[in-house]
Amino acid sequence: MHVSPVSALWLRKNKRKQKKNEMRVSTLHWLLASSSPPHEKAKVRIGRGSVSSRHLSSALFYHGSLPSPRMNRGNINPNVINAQYAVRGELAVKAEQYRLALARGEKLPFDRVIFANIGNPQQLEQKPITFSRQVLSLLEYPPLLENEEALKSSFGYKSDVIARAKTLLADVQSVGAYSQSLGAPGIRQSVADFIARRDGFPANQADVYLTAGASSGVNTILNVICAGKKTGVLVPIPQYPLYTATLSLLDATCVPYYLNESQSWATDVEEIKTALAKGQNAGTDIRAIVIINPGNPTGASLNPTAIKDVIDIAAEKQLVIIADEVYQTNVFKGEFTSFKKRLRELQAEFPNKYDGVELVSLHSVSKGMVGECGHRGGYFELVGFKPEVVEQIYKFVSIMLCPPVIGQCLLECMVHPPVEGEESYELYRKEYNDIAEGLRQRAFALYEAFKKMEGVECQEPQGAMYLFPTIHLPAKAVAAATKAGRKADEFYCLRLLDATGVCVVPGSGFGQKEGTLHFRTTFLAPGTEWVDRIVKFHSDFMNEFRD
Amino acid sequence: MHVSPVSALWLRKNKRKQKKNEMRVSTLHWLLASSSPPHEKAKVRIGRGSVSSRHLSSALFYHGSLPSPRMNRGNINPNVINAQYAVRGELAVKAEQYRLALARGEKLPFDRVIFANIGNPQQLEQKPITFSRQVLSLLEYPPLLENEEALKSSFGYKSDVIARAKTLLADVQSVGAYSQSLGAPGIRQSVADFIARRDGFPANQADVYLTAGASSGVNTILNVICAGKKTGVLVPIPQYPLYTATLSLLDATCVPYYLNESQSWATDVEEIKTALAKGQNAGTDIRAIVIINPGNPTGASLNPTAIKDVIDIAAEKQLVIIADEVYQTNVFKGEFTSFKKRLRELQAEFPNKYDGVELVSLHSVSKGMVGECGHRGGYFELVGFKPEVVEQIYKFVSIMLCPPVIGQCLLECMVHPPVEGEESYELYRKEYNDIAEGLRQRAFALYEAFKKMEGVECQEPQGAMYLFPTIHLPAKAVAAATKAGRKADEFYCLRLLDATGVCVVPGSGFGQKEGTLHFRTTFLAPGTEWVDRIVKFHSDFMNEFRD
Repeated sequence: MHVSPVSALWLRKNKRKQKKNEMRVSTLHWLLASSSPPHEKAKVRIGRGSVSSRHLSSALFYHGSLPSPRMNRGNINPNVINAQYAVRGELAVKAEQYRLALARGEKLPFDRVIFANIGNPQQLEQKPITFSRQVLSLLEYPPLLENEEALKSSFGYKSDVIARAKTLLADVQSVGAYSQSLGAPGIRQSVADFIARRDGFPANQADVYLTAGASSGVNTILNVICAGKKTGVLVPIPQYPLYTATLSLLDATCVPYYLNESQSWATDVEEIKTALAKGQNAGTDIRAIVIINPGNPTGASLNPTAIKDVIDIAAEKQLVIIADEVYQTNVFKGEFTSFKKRLRELQAEFPNKYDGVELVSLHSVSKGMVGECGHRGGYFELVGFKPEVVEQIYKFVSIMLCPPVIGQCLLECMVHPPVEGEESYELYRKEYNDIAEGLRQRAFALYEAFKKMEGVECQEPQGAMYLFPTIHLPAKAVAAATKAGRKADEFYCLRLLDATGVCVVPGSGFGQKEGTLHFRTTFLAPGTEWVDRIVKFHSDFMNEFRD
Repeated sequence: MHVSPVSALWLRKNKRKQKKNEMRVSTLHWLLASSSPPHEKAKVRIGRGSVSSRHLSSALFYHGSLPSPRMNRGNINPNVINAQYAVRGELAVKAEQYRLALARGEKLPFDRVIFANIGNPQQLEQKPITFSRQVLSLLEYPPLLENEEALKSSFGYKSDVIARAKTLLADVQSVGAYSQSLGAPGIRQSVADFIARRDGFPANQADVYLTAGASSGVNTILNVICAGKKTGVLVPIPQYPLYTATLSLLDATCVPYYLNESQSWATDVEEIKTALAKGQNAGTDIRAIVIINPGNPTGASLNPTAIKDVIDIAAEKQLVIIADEVYQTNVFKGEFTSFKKRLRELQAEFPNKYDGVELVSLHSVSKGMVGECGHRGGYFELVGFKPEVVEQIYKFVSIMLCPPVIGQCLLECMVHPPVEGEESYELYRKEYNDIAEGLRQRAFALYEAFKKMEGVECQEPQGAMYLFPTIHLPAKAVAAATKAGRKADEFYCLRLLDATGVCVVPGSGFGQKEGTLHFRTTFLAPGTEWVDRIVKFHSDFMNEFRD
């Protein structure tokens, strides 16, 4: 490496500063700075000396001398400060620290960290669907399509894989080229066909917007709908914190409505009406209602009657429906019904009454049996919006250019999988069913464990990837939490992580009724050994703090 | 497809409505709705009837009956309404229409559309780098790493490709799993190593944040820095409109400073000071300065002295420097110097004076010789920020979970390409040099053409992927534009598109001094035939409107 004499000088000077300042660096920064596995702490050789690169973070440069940096916690965007997002917060950072410590060979009370804080199936050894990944490998390196060896039937790429790769390439030209901002037209058509098959009602590719995961779709929709603090959006509590965080960033008002835990976390129409009236009385212009179905974190799954109830309120009160349907294939009980389908049924049955309803339905490649979170693919379908609003949505998405094109192609494989008679069908069916069955088994195994735990109550699994049990903690535990400056559920989850390496998210990260405590855990991790660890921890914890 | 009787009823009802309402659909919506290539206009069969799916857009549902939709242009987020983003605006939509018309076999005055409106190299036949794409194909389908056929040396995957894929897989586990919100740690380390090699000063992976393209990095930084209307950010004019659009979305104030066209679009320190003083006098709290180097749309490239001048102002006036350096390898004249390197030199040379400077440096896989726009990869490096601010940046990016993991891996291949002695080196070098040389030749060919055009002045190409010529139009042309309700440059560019199929962006999309007119064109399209078309159009246009 070429190093100028100046940079050697810079280094000497800053090594002196370093010691003085190291103590002031915040916890998070320390965690981040030291999160390198051992092999990454490469020495950067500078002249004859050497210095570990992890000690040279930007944190060095704001101390001791004038002028100090311009930005500080007091002057940055207060909406960012106000946003909360626990799923990847302190607990997740600490869990990553433990993982790295184990990788370095350090001794901890457990030999493996279980990331049950986030629905990240492939981190927990869920295998990707072969068909999709074979197609993507051809798209990333199209010369394989002209490679005689690769095209031999013995090689592994079936004829339907090759055909699909060719079709997708014709649509996108190269996965390295920007697509249209809405996504590639052929892929949007595939999504529309999927929706039409799923619902039995037509869908139009012009209403389908491809996204970088459902999160980016939610971001787009809320950005367009929300016009400042006076704008309110009804959000279920508990909820996936993307909604409250995005509303905070937009300085819009979250109008919470509580799900009914005693009825398996049902969506309670009266509760929505009460929340709506209360918000409106406070002067909030409530424009939309978020429904997560199947629910995150609750797992609750709505039946057609419950969906009609929500659509009725939306029609009556003129609320845009934001239907987060990313768990639509993760259903254990009954069948998934989409908001779009139910709306079309009602529109057919009752002329005019439902014509004005605006619906956004979101879906993703991250969940279901696909579980391709890292690819950031998804879509939303717009129903009933005025073209003048659609135009603004189009402009908004165009500023970020386009969603990842390979993620778009993966979405295409998800909504248009191999069908009976095609060469890849049998393997696809088997992989899909095995994953579905595995998830079901793990959900119920965890549920059975929770049933046996003192002071823990849990709904029977219905859908999504989560269980969200209530925990009743002894007063001594709550007091200990307060003393530690923690919410009681946070205290419990931190202790769980420290003792077992299992990372879950406290209920307060999703919202919960005053006086109740929960945590959310995925049931994605294979095996049952980690479940046993939770059971034992809980028993020890209860004994430690028993009143 | 299973279709319920209800949906057939829905369809009959809406087919009647359709005719009545079709005329009201806005232009954009029509463009979008009819943007399907012929093979996509599949008939959706419903019962015995059939209906073209493109006629069933959501636009049907807002007419004629009460209640009408809730959202309209008058009540949605005014910040979205105010945002402007011409690069993918009306001209781009029209160009796509022409492309599809040609694909359908329609006759137009040209036989090919040239998308010179956007830096999208692989849309214009630039080939991806083989090394990177081979690695990505292995990452998408890791069983290839155990396939005896694929591992044979004759197959095409070299040993360094296989080794890299294995290293990256060990880091990310699966490209289908979420990574850390900042990006995978090993990849961030590679980026830090790249920066250290480039600058001759150490870099720390803890300061590196991977992003979904540089656009998403800019979005993050501006979100954190901007606290409402009183916050100002200095933006060069002309600029890439991502900056003004994002500031509009954040309801922050864009404080424009003009680049000096008569000095090859130089960054003019006095102009910055004037703009700063003017903004401050108006009560704006100006916190940051955006520098695009090499420039977009101007192509201007800053030398070390010019960079020092900017850093001096930043240090003196306490401005965060946002250095958009995505074109750092697209330099035709002189050598690229990064702001980070120059800052470290100054910090070494002048103790204390520059210690408080905060810098964000952005880079991307979309440009350079890589040109992988569709993969949405990039990073930013933070220098000099307080940990309490870094914490908020971390929280902000965690809400969107993580950048696309395959894009992260591609970034790794870009910053860590094969080196001499490795098996893929020779091919990599050749591909890289051929692309660089091709871009240089096309830039100068276009420049030569512009030099010959009446009333057109253009700076010699220095960097980036664009030329940004001034056009002097006759008064009659300006009058005709006004009559058509168009800005003069817009009028010119629309006529150019209609006559030649070449899509460029009017200067007004980037900002330009009152009374001047420009357009931006990429020089990515192969061949010279399209350049000849521009020359001929221009001559005809001038003759048509000659005073």
